[in-house]
Amino acid sequence: MTKKKLLLVNGPNLRLLGRREPEIYGRTTLAEIETACRELAEDLGFELECFQSDSEGALISRIGEAPLQGICGIVINPAGYTHTSVALHDALLAAALPAVEVHLSNIFTREEFRHTSITGSACIGVVAGFGKESYILALRALAARLS
Amino acid sequence: MTKKKLLLVNGPNLRLLGRREPEIYGRTTLAEIETACRELAEDLGFELECFQSDSEGALISRIGEAPLQGICGIVINPAGYTHTSVALHDALLAAALPAVEVHLSNIFTREEFRHTSITGSACIGVVAGFGKESYILALRALAARLS
Amino acid sequence: MTKKKLLLVNGPNLRLLGRREPEIYGRTTLAEIETACRELAEDLGFELECFQSDSEGALISRIGEAPLQGICGIVINPAGYTHTSVALHDALLAAALPAVEVHLSNIFTREEFRHTSITGSACIGVVAGFGKESYILALRALAARLS
Amino acid sequence: MTKKKLLLVNGPNLRLLGRREPEIYGRTTLAEIETACRELAEDLGFELECFQSDSEGALISRIGEAPLQGICGIVINPAGYTHTSVALHDALLAAALPAVEVHLSNIFTREEFRHTSITGSACIGVVAGFGKESYILALRALAARLS
Amino acid sequence: MTKKKLLLVNGPNLRLLGRREPEIYGRTTLAEIETACRELAEDLGFELECFQSDSEGALISRIGEAPLQGICGIVINPAGYTHTSVALHDALLAAALPAVEVHLSNIFTREEFRHTSITGSACIGVVAGFGKESYILALRALAARLS
Amino acid sequence: MTKKKLLLVNGPNLRLLGRREPEIYGRTTLAEIETACRELAEDLGFELECFQSDSEGALISRIGEAPLQGICGIVINPAGYTHTSVALHDALLAAALPAVEVHLSNIFTREEFRHTSITGSACIGVVAGFGKESYILALRALAARLS
Amino acid sequence: MTKKKLLLVNGPNLRLLGRREPEIYGRTTLAEIETACRELAEDLGFELECFQSDSEGALISRIGEAPLQGICGIVINPAGYTHTSVALHDALLAAALPAVEVHLSNIFTREEFRHTSITGSACIGVVAGFGKESYILALRALAARLS
Amino acid sequence: MTKKKLLLVNGPNLRLLGRREPEIYGRTTLAEIETACRELAEDLGFELECFQSDSEGALISRIGEAPLQGICGIVINPAGYTHTSVALHDALLAAALPAVEVHLSNIFTREEFRHTSITGSACIGVVAGFGKESYILALRALAARLS
Amino acid sequence: MTKKKLLLVNGPNLRLLGRREPEIYGRTTLAEIETACRELAEDLGFELECFQSDSEGALISRIGEAPLQGICGIVINPAGYTHTSVALHDALLAAALPAVEVHLSNIFTREEFRHTSITGSACIGVVAGFGKESYILALRALAARLS
Amino acid sequence: MTKKKLLLVNGPNLRLLGRREPEIYGRTTLAEIETACRELAEDLGFELECFQSDSEGALISRIGEAPLQGICGIVINPAGYTHTSVALHDALLAAALPAVEVHLSNIFTREEFRHTSITGSACIGVVAGFGKESYILALRALAARLS
Amino acid sequence: MTKKKLLLVNGPNLRLLGRREPEIYGRTTLAEIETACRELAEDLGFELECFQSDSEGALISRIGEAPLQGICGIVINPAGYTHTSVALHDALLAAALPAVEVHLSNIFTREEFRHTSITGSACIGVVAGFGKESYILALRALAARLS
Amino acid sequence: MTKKKLLLVNGPNLRLLGRREPEIYGRTTLAEIETACRELAEDLGFELECFQSDSEGALISRIGEAPLQGICGIVINPAGYTHTSVALHDALLAAALPAVEVHLSNIFTREEFRHTSITGSACIGVVAGFGKESYILALRALAARLS
Repeated sequence: MTKKKLLLVNGPNLRLLGRREPEIYGRTTLAEIETACRELAEDLGFELECFQSDSEGALISRIGEAPLQGICGIVINPAGYTHTSVALHDALLAAALPAVEVHLSNIFTREEFRHTSITGSACIGVVAGFGKESYILALRALAARLS
Repeated sequence: MTKKKLLLVNGPNLRLLGRREPEIYGRTTLAEIETACRELAEDLGFELECFQSDSEGALISRIGEAPLQGICGIVINPAGYTHTSVALHDALLAAALPAVEVHLSNIFTREEFRHTSITGSACIGVVAGFGKESYILALRALAARLS
Repeated sequence: MTKKKLLLVNGPNLRLLGRREPEIYGRTTLAEIETACRELAEDLGFELECFQSDSEGALISRIGEAPLQGICGIVINPAGYTHTSVALHDALLAAALPAVEVHLSNIFTREEFRHTSITGSACIGVVAGFGKESYILALRALAARLS
Repeated sequence: MTKKKLLLVNGPNLRLLGRREPEIYGRTTLAEIETACRELAEDLGFELECFQSDSEGALISRIGEAPLQGICGIVINPAGYTHTSVALHDALLAAALPAVEVHLSNIFTREEFRHTSITGSACIGVVAGFGKESYILALRALAARLS
Repeated sequence: MTKKKLLLVNGPNLRLLGRREPEIYGRTTLAEIETACRELAEDLGFELECFQSDSEGALISRIGEAPLQGICGIVINPAGYTHTSVALHDALLAAALPAVEVHLSNIFTREEFRHTSITGSACIGVVAGFGKESYILALRALAARLS
Repeated sequence: MTKKKLLLVNGPNLRLLGRREPEIYGRTTLAEIETACRELAEDLGFELECFQSDSEGALISRIGEAPLQGICGIVINPAGYTHTSVALHDALLAAALPAVEVHLSNIFTREEFRHTSITGSACIGVVAGFGKESYILALRALAARLS
Repeated sequence: MTKKKLLLVNGPNLRLLGRREPEIYGRTTLAEIETACRELAEDLGFELECFQSDSEGALISRIGEAPLQGICGIVINPAGYTHTSVALHDALLAAALPAVEVHLSNIFTREEFRHTSITGSACIGVVAGFGKESYILALRALAARLS
Repeated sequence: MTKKKLLLVNGPNLRLLGRREPEIYGRTTLAEIETACRELAEDLGFELECFQSDSEGALISRIGEAPLQGICGIVINPAGYTHTSVALHDALLAAALPAVEVHLSNIFTREEFRHTSITGSACIGVVAGFGKESYILALRALAARLS
Repeated sequence: MTKKKLLLVNGPNLRLLGRREPEIYGRTTLAEIETACRELAEDLGFELECFQSDSEGALISRIGEAPLQGICGIVINPAGYTHTSVALHDALLAAALPAVEVHLSNIFTREEFRHTSITGSACIGVVAGFGKESYILALRALAARLS
Repeated sequence: MTKKKLLLVNGPNLRLLGRREPEIYGRTTLAEIETACRELAEDLGFELECFQSDSEGALISRIGEAPLQGICGIVINPAGYTHTSVALHDALLAAALPAVEVHLSNIFTREEFRHTSITGSACIGVVAGFGKESYILALRALAARLS
Repeated sequence: MTKKKLLLVNGPNLRLLGRREPEIYGRTTLAEIETACRELAEDLGFELECFQSDSEGALISRIGEAPLQGICGIVINPAGYTHTSVALHDALLAAALPAVEVHLSNIFTREEFRHTSITGSACIGVVAGFGKESYILALRALAARLS
Repeated sequence: MTKKKLLLVNGPNLRLLGRREPEIYGRTTLAEIETACRELAEDLGFELECFQSDSEGALISRIGEAPLQGICGIVINPAGYTHTSVALHDALLAAALPAVEVHLSNIFTREEFRHTSITGSACIGVVAGFGKESYILALRALAARLS
């Protein structure tokens, strides 16, 4: 029997994780996060696909294809696109899959232009502020919802 | 004698048309819209090229190339980029071609962040709210302007 | 068999069309627009009644009477009342008829106080920027919706 | 001995009451409201005149004439003019009569542009949200003030 | 047969009524208002419980307990909490009882920070500006709704 | 030889001048102002027509007809319509006649919603704060411009 | 050896959980949440104290006492106080303990006045949108931080 | 018998009048305006002192000294200080003399930051848009007030 | 002869003074401040009562009782309630006693949400930025006013 | 041994103190305030220099020179420059001396444009609302800081 | 010895330079700018790499790779992305290289939506308004910083 | 043959350069900047006059005189007046000379009230963020424009 598939989507600049401003984002790399998430997904009975792009359009396209590929849930860190991207928000609605938004840092303690989330209003929930742990928690929340 | 060429540009998420939130966007697919527009263009004595991309940059590039390829008018549905994209607005101005903005739904009856149009201020006019028919009307308006 | 009736409503200052600021509004007169719309309506199998008033109250009253008189759709150019009239917006909702809002010029390229439409949020769609052609397109859109 | 006269003023679209969006405004007609108010006024020892107009100007004129005709208090539902009409606000101040503003629905639970009242700041009080009963309460409040 | 019970809730500073700024709030005491309301409630076939607290939390708790105690409707003057208290608004929604908001003075004629009502959007209606009479009217409105 | 004609337009509530809030607007009646203006116009070599209406639509219509009747300049007190009427602003632009806006009181010392002037931006200038004298000054300014 | 102690703080109206608007907040009771959290805390090697109050002041006092009682971390659902309470924000800062803010529903998909979090800016992170599961995730995040 | 004295105050950049942006401000020089005002003042039975400074402080000082020197009224063009200077506004209030604000151009037809007047709210009235004639009218208005 | 009584009111979190964020609020405890104030009050010929509460309602109640207990002036640090509490502002007005608002830190150099004071507009003055010394100065100011 | 020097800076219009709007600013003259401050400074072991200017530039220059002249602290009433002067704010920062801002009246009870303080954010604290006593308190606060 | 490398990044629509709206952007082509910059870089002892893309994602990716490729400074014209792109702003911060923002036109003299710079706040400085010369100056500034 | 003359204008507080907040503004003195600019101007074939004042009025006067003295271009650092001075903006327009605005620090990375430039909209361009080098670049830009 095939496992249910989940999709982990990481947005702009996240490929640089671990190198980029570690005092804000920590020293964990994206590869480490993806590995940790894949292992947890396995434990929870899911298969996890990972995707990262700096391009808003590529993120939108990937999310648009997700329901066609049997993906049944999304964990997404839209990074810098969080606060303004109506198009990414529409992509999440169009996919019509449960999605969880995740942020490494607490968006409420940073610059004011990071306090709102356009994309978050197309998700079932948001987890922010726990570094790599944010992903783990989001994946657990998504898995719980899908079970 | 070659016909004048028009360009139909569709922005993010529109590839999913017909599948995506049909209660808002209807059940017509993008292919059906493109076919209907091509046929109407023919009837009106024009040739119609069609382009869709989820990428703001690809949309900008395509519009930038248009005048070099003999395109003499644009119908564009910028979708989620409508409300914030200064760069797409600049692309339309830079192309210096008459453009008509089109929306499937009535932007004034949806969320407040959809009530304004940055890209529309670089167009000659806007048609919104009539589903697939919005494209037909926009194409007629553009053809009338070019005749 | 009697034809279905449509109503064309023109708001303040539009009686002056053709004389008033032709560089913005063109040289077509209101009579020419009404004649062109009546002819198109005939062709599309409808009868068109025309009404113009500078008075917000008269516009509201005329729209309020419309459903009692067998009108089954409205094309309206609310002109200067577009951007502020809650009462006209309520009249359109109260009439409970499909309505299309039309503007001669593109509201998004003019003064900022013309960028929004209170009345448009009580319509099925909006056509703006094509001069006299805006009316033709709006009528086609309305007829298509009613067929 | 002649009774003191009160004036009941109803603004735009209220003639349609009972037919218009009954899920918001209820099924009572304006005639029924006026009759109920007249009867209550009689009971309270007053004579009630009723006036309805869709025209802001006609409402202003009627209010302006009121003190000349021996009217000594006003109940007014300014409907769609409530939220923007400085001129109607000025008319109420100019009449220098105690006025009570009334709304069928609760303005605080509807669209944001209905949350404020320009006209209400020229009244002694406001009653909103109780359908036809709003008028009854407003009339009682006015009568109590005048006794 | 036991009567239906109503709850009259008065918020911060209202205990001081009659002593506090009588030029704004009048000279009636809270006890007089409560007595008048109890008598009217009796006449209308209800039993009225009265509660006053300066504490937002105590008001919330009292409202939260109301449905458990057989209360079937609330008249509330949230006073200074009217304009900012999301928690009190939530309490009224959570209680799921018809509530009427009441103000002694007309909130639209006072400082701008009193023009909106967060709590009022969780009520069926609002009565403001008639001093002690506001309570009488609100109670009548609530009774009419419950009959 | 016929004299050049000017038009004096007075907006809502101004018919009540002298009776209405004399502490703000003074005790001069509209008839006195019109007489004083007519006499000054005569002295300056013009004929003055006077028009007052409480109706925004009637004001717009009168201004729209002005150029057809040989009017060559307008003095207007838009009163309560000053601050919001895009339609009246458009009427003044459409008439394409020099216009001077006049206010009895100083709009900058009153409520904040009176501090701006939509109609004034369609005039050559504004005179405010001098009671009846405001009209005299405005008429002089207009005459000076037309000579 | 004594376990480290954590504090679970629930704000206004949350005592009603399970009864209150179950379509938004679910059917789980506060007791069930507290029990589930206590059990998870045990599993993670902590002892959990629970506190609920409708009173902003009582919440502040409890948080202020926490460091004196050996509490080393806080999970808090400030409910309706989330969006405005500077005092609760200050209490969290004053306690100088790691805190995680939790919401049952996704604050970004509800009324605009719920989109910001004053209290969240005094926490290390926020979890919102997962019902009872939000608490579980928050507790895990806090435990991970403290280990 | 000595004549009553008036003060004409001109603010920053007005010394350059006639040279500076003549398409906005006209070709009249400040000397010509001062001469014309002095002559009119004489005719009206007053003596006129003239003062120009680019310095906000010097303008404030001059206005502060005015009542000590027997000045009984002020005509002032605060130019660029109009829209922001609380200190100049305070100086006019402190002088406690009737003042008339004057502008060469119509502030409502220029950049948005010129639409308001801080200083004007400390004056009895404002005249704007008539070039040199603005001063003449302002002086007449002031003289009329003082007679 | 009995001394006049003053009341020192301290708001939320201030009980923690000395322990809480000493880099902002200093190391002085509330007890030390109260003692210093009591001694100064004695020296100035007054008796000082001290009250601290984290509860907005308790603060309001205490202030409401003050005039009944012969209190003739209030020094208050509303702390986190300063910036939003209309109810506390109303309590100070209702008490009708001279009050002085005090802050340990300079509200203008901290987060933007601390720059305004709702409660301060119900006081005769404000002293902010001097730590414990702020209280001493406020007490002196109040005593000077009462002498 | 020479005493430490302090500087008292008074901004625009304050020379007029005692004559200007005494109902707001009191009847004390600037000379009386300066004398009282000099005497108190002496008592506290300081020498006080006094400076008043209506000119923002002169105030800036004087503050800029202060550290070169051995001044070690500043008391400043920036009056009308308080709310907008970035340059004066910069001057206080550049001087790098402890400064105390003082206002005669309570800025929070006056016009809304007086509620903020740009200059105050470059000071250690603010004292407002106590007339001449404000200066006395500010001087005490500054002296306490410097001791 | 290898030269230090700099990166010149040009954003959307800049490929069209010289053809696009020459009245705003001049007639110089991007190739000419890149050649001029390369030559100047050589003269200053640097090697210059050039990159243009219409895609926000491609720009972000290129900047992200820069530090890995030995780039030690960036000159960037983000064009239409300047005013809204948090993601590009984050890319510049993540690269942790000195960057200079450049604009052909003066952003302060164009539409209001161009007056701010999100990306500029992640740069050491900004040069705007000098056409091709803006690039030359920016390159000089960057070189000076790196020497 | 005489050289063309340029004017370097420095605004408030800049005389203190080198002493004032060196962590923001660097350690270079104004004299050093003026010397460096004079030398560069010589090299570029211009003569440079330098002017510094803390007074907005003096800066305006100096700029007003510039065209009369054969100045043909201006480099200006308006410092604290940048963000609010309409009068200085008007002076630059009135002088009708090409001007370049310069800032030592990057205005986009400092307090929000420094992000806009009123004066910059009257200049051909802006250079900000490079310390003393900003002046050098601005002078080069101005010279290039004048050649």
